[in-house]
Amino acid sequence: MNRDKHISSAFDRDLETIQAQVVKMGGMVEAAITDAASALESRDEELAEEVRRRDKAIDQLEAQINEDAARLIALRAPTATDLRMVLAVMKIAASLERVADYAKNMAKRTHVLSQMPAIEGAGMALRRMSQAVDKMLQDALDSYIRRDAELAEDVRQRDLEVDQMYNALFREFLTHMMEDPRSITPCMHLHFIAKNVERMGDHATSIAEQVIYLVTGEMPDEARPKSNSVPDVIPGTGSEG
Amino acid sequence: MNRDKHISSAFDRDLETIQAQVVKMGGMVEAAITDAASALESRDEELAEEVRRRDKAIDQLEAQINEDAARLIALRAPTATDLRMVLAVMKIAASLERVADYAKNMAKRTHVLSQMPAIEGAGMALRRMSQAVDKMLQDALDSYIRRDAELAEDVRQRDLEVDQMYNALFREFLTHMMEDPRSITPCMHLHFIAKNVERMGDHATSIAEQVIYLVTGEMPDEARPKSNSVPDVIPGTGSEG
Repeated sequence: MNRDKHISSAFDRDLETIQAQVVKMGGMVEAAITDAASALESRDEELAEEVRRRDKAIDQLEAQINEDAARLIALRAPTATDLRMVLAVMKIAASLERVADYAKNMAKRTHVLSQMPAIEGAGMALRRMSQAVDKMLQDALDSYIRRDAELAEDVRQRDLEVDQMYNALFREFLTHMMEDPRSITPCMHLHFIAKNVERMGDHATSIAEQVIYLVTGEMPDEARPKSNSVPDVIPGTGSEG
Repeated sequence: MNRDKHISSAFDRDLETIQAQVVKMGGMVEAAITDAASALESRDEELAEEVRRRDKAIDQLEAQINEDAARLIALRAPTATDLRMVLAVMKIAASLERVADYAKNMAKRTHVLSQMPAIEGAGMALRRMSQAVDKMLQDALDSYIRRDAELAEDVRQRDLEVDQMYNALFREFLTHMMEDPRSITPCMHLHFIAKNVERMGDHATSIAEQVIYLVTGEMPDEARPKSNSVPDVIPGTGSEG
């Protein structure tokens, strides 16, 4: 019994170390979102370049987390419940890594977009959407650290708002493109960014769902609020203008 | 010693069962790609609906694989090398699940696109691109079953061709949109599908990289051939027409 106890504590200590890395990774990813969105809005190519450079460190941290988690499993042979926690940590790190990839992609497009006519209001709208997603991510990670299923559920609900922001932007870009052919190429890129920010929200939601699973033992997948991810708008042929 | 041997065989048997599930899942995902692309080209809404329906079974199979893999780890306490194989199986299942999601998204857009003017040649080009990705996925899974790093490396190289197909399509859609505003909305959807097919190729490549890692112990990440994922084209303002 004592030995079990001892093994359990060692496991907890190891898991906490990994969790601290996830928190660190979360901070880096949040900074990537904020900086990428701000670089895009102010056409700050230097900041965008920095976001791209920093992505490597995020990737390395994810690899480290995976390695440490695998070593923890191999070393401590955790029980089914403990194992679930280790697998959750790996899934959360994977979600964070993909969010960072989207931020990096946004930073890449900043360079391309800086050489094109600006689309009024788009940078600000995307930064606002990014802020909402950043807050979702923060709260998802908070809910993870505190094992707070209620906060996690709140994050899930907020994903719907981000989806709505995306749908509104999609329509706005279409209108721009139909009014002025010169806006087609920049709007294609901006639309991509909007979709990627919407996907960041999906990943924050995945993290929240992992938390709900850890706390309640049930995956809330079925009831997940989801606006249609394919905007069903079929506008006319420029008559909106 | 004998006991170790016994434990090891039980592990192998369990792993093979999980691998068989992954192969089954691979077949379902390949069918989803093929059917989604064919439904899109022939505007077959019924087939598209079937692809969407079948996605649920793919999700369930991934959940089953994860559960079985977790149970295997908990039960057999595998060595570091064996553990690496179980984690790889989980990563491969996750990649397959995401490919299926993209196929489902393509199927969703079929309904939307069927109500819009057709863009000449787009359906065929996307089906061809899907075929290339389908073949990559097949070979990636083959390379996994046979632990064939050479075939896996070949899959990685082919990802570049898919990236080039995507870039060519991107340019084509831009030209259409600039020539005719009525093509803007369908081209936005088609462009999304093209990007998603390109992402399927990225996931097939991830699977191939897992195989290389399993066989050689090294992740080939750095040398990965990658054309710029943000097309750098800045066409004029319709002068292409």
